[in-house]
Amino acid sequence: MDKLTIRTLAKELKLSVSTISKALRDSHEISAETKRKVLELAEKLNYTPNPYASSLRKKNSNTIAVVLPEVADSFFSLAINGIESVAREKGYHVLIYLTHENFAREQSILNDFKSGRVDGILMSVSAETNNSDHINELINFGKPLVFFDRVCEDVETGSIITNDTESSYEATCHLIQKKCKKIAFLYTSPDLSINKKRLEGYTKALTEFGLQLKKENIILCDGDSDSNYKLIYKTLKNKTRPDGILACVEKLTTPIYLACKELKLSIPGNIKLVSFTNLPAALILSPTLTTVTQPAFEMGKTAAEILFKAIQKPNYNLKKEKIVIASCLNVRDSTG
Amino acid sequence: MDKLTIRTLAKELKLSVSTISKALRDSHEISAETKRKVLELAEKLNYTPNPYASSLRKKNSNTIAVVLPEVADSFFSLAINGIESVAREKGYHVLIYLTHENFAREQSILNDFKSGRVDGILMSVSAETNNSDHINELINFGKPLVFFDRVCEDVETGSIITNDTESSYEATCHLIQKKCKKIAFLYTSPDLSINKKRLEGYTKALTEFGLQLKKENIILCDGDSDSNYKLIYKTLKNKTRPDGILACVEKLTTPIYLACKELKLSIPGNIKLVSFTNLPAALILSPTLTTVTQPAFEMGKTAAEILFKAIQKPNYNLKKEKIVIASCLNVRDSTG
Repeated sequence: MDKLTIRTLAKELKLSVSTISKALRDSHEISAETKRKVLELAEKLNYTPNPYASSLRKKNSNTIAVVLPEVADSFFSLAINGIESVAREKGYHVLIYLTHENFAREQSILNDFKSGRVDGILMSVSAETNNSDHINELINFGKPLVFFDRVCEDVETGSIITNDTESSYEATCHLIQKKCKKIAFLYTSPDLSINKKRLEGYTKALTEFGLQLKKENIILCDGDSDSNYKLIYKTLKNKTRPDGILACVEKLTTPIYLACKELKLSIPGNIKLVSFTNLPAALILSPTLTTVTQPAFEMGKTAAEILFKAIQKPNYNLKKEKIVIASCLNVRDSTG
Repeated sequence: MDKLTIRTLAKELKLSVSTISKALRDSHEISAETKRKVLELAEKLNYTPNPYASSLRKKNSNTIAVVLPEVADSFFSLAINGIESVAREKGYHVLIYLTHENFAREQSILNDFKSGRVDGILMSVSAETNNSDHINELINFGKPLVFFDRVCEDVETGSIITNDTESSYEATCHLIQKKCKKIAFLYTSPDLSINKKRLEGYTKALTEFGLQLKKENIILCDGDSDSNYKLIYKTLKNKTRPDGILACVEKLTTPIYLACKELKLSIPGNIKLVSFTNLPAALILSPTLTTVTQPAFEMGKTAAEILFKAIQKPNYNLKKEKIVIASCLNVRDSTG
């Protein structure tokens, strides 16, 4: 089929392209009779205006970008659901970009947005991101950007986060109350805002309860799943192994359970475990898993709502939008 | 900051807009000296061409759409990873649309694609889709579309599926070999291609082994998580409850485990269970879960590769691209 354009309509109706265009936009310059004819033919031929021509005219793209590390994680997939629910309501399209925790890729993705491809950006930074020039540049360029979950502390813009310090503090206190003396903190990246805060909460709890903060208990698991498993196995095989674990990342849950099983260590008998995760399967693990459950859908939804405020009002003060939505500690059998 | 356009460059260099445009496209009509000046200024001002202006000129959008029921499911999130890996390599952008299993939403999403927003579509149909006019219309309009996982059988186009009949047959045979006499088939939609095939495989296995096919063992769980739980609980509480379950959908796993726990039914002692899922946590459930694991990443990747063939060659014969990638039965403790 030949490409159906506004010219096809103009030719068929023996009218100018500009008349057709104005009629389709319901301009007052065009008579009701002409508008009727144009709309009837457009409907008959199933004509849909080219969105990119319309973008150029209106200077907007009706599209937002979501830049995030990965989708195969229950937090991010639920957050996408929240974002999509708002975008759909607003008639916006959602471009998804995965950084796979790679800084160079994140820079290159953001650089492309200066082009006008999107009207705004929702972002959760990669684990490698320790410099925010690419983000500040985009904001200075005039693109509204809102962080959700993982933020760059030195970028002044809207952010929707959860209470990472407090929930990590609460989880650590819970482990201490369950008689853990040696609590390991397992995480994936020292540069991530959320991990810094979770470490802060963990440290605060140990200090308050007079437990010693030891470097060897703060364990960086930033390898692939195989090397993470080996590191966890080695840690738990050691005679001086921890009696409690706070895991910052969902994907560490499976290797911890597997290593305990392999080493015949009982959870919660030998080791008590709390993990940050939104996995529904936490309820049916053996034992059921005590989790810090994040308000993932709500965070995505709220971030999108804030972004649309800024898209609709060009001088909207995004900097004042710092929203914290609390996580929830769900105590289950893995902490006895 | 004022919007930086090709006009800004033209004004600054006292050249025509058309000269700048040709210089940026490296046209032979423009001298090397002029090209150098234009590129230097473009770099200095950090000018990026508007992608939508470029789309209109080149008649393509460098964007593909992925239309799928949901993201909070390990199959779909892994498939997105596969799709994204190919799109990134090709320099394409990925729009994600969620139908939430709603037919009207799917129609409306597809209708928008006639506009030229995307160069091609990857699609897994919604559970409600029992009419394919909207899909055929889009294909007749000239948009390449490739199905992955869930297809419309009466649409002639490329599809990447897994061997649903065979893997369901194999899973059912496995349950029968484990002495199950009364195997329930739990699914979410009778209209889905994948469920029809899985039911076929289940039926074939029962027939071959001389077990009776009973209507009451084919159980439709198409409610929300609460009503699915209640239905499963009721089924398992009944005296005539099944001694084996084949669950077609990942999200049914949690309510089945929970209902068994509540009713003090042992898996695999009282009930043996196989589920279609790619959840890494299958390894750490109690008991570990026997799964039909689908090649989710591979399916997404292959579907994207096929789509790009059609995008690059307008008359590419997509109809011949019917690829089946096999799933794998992973036997674990839930089947004894």
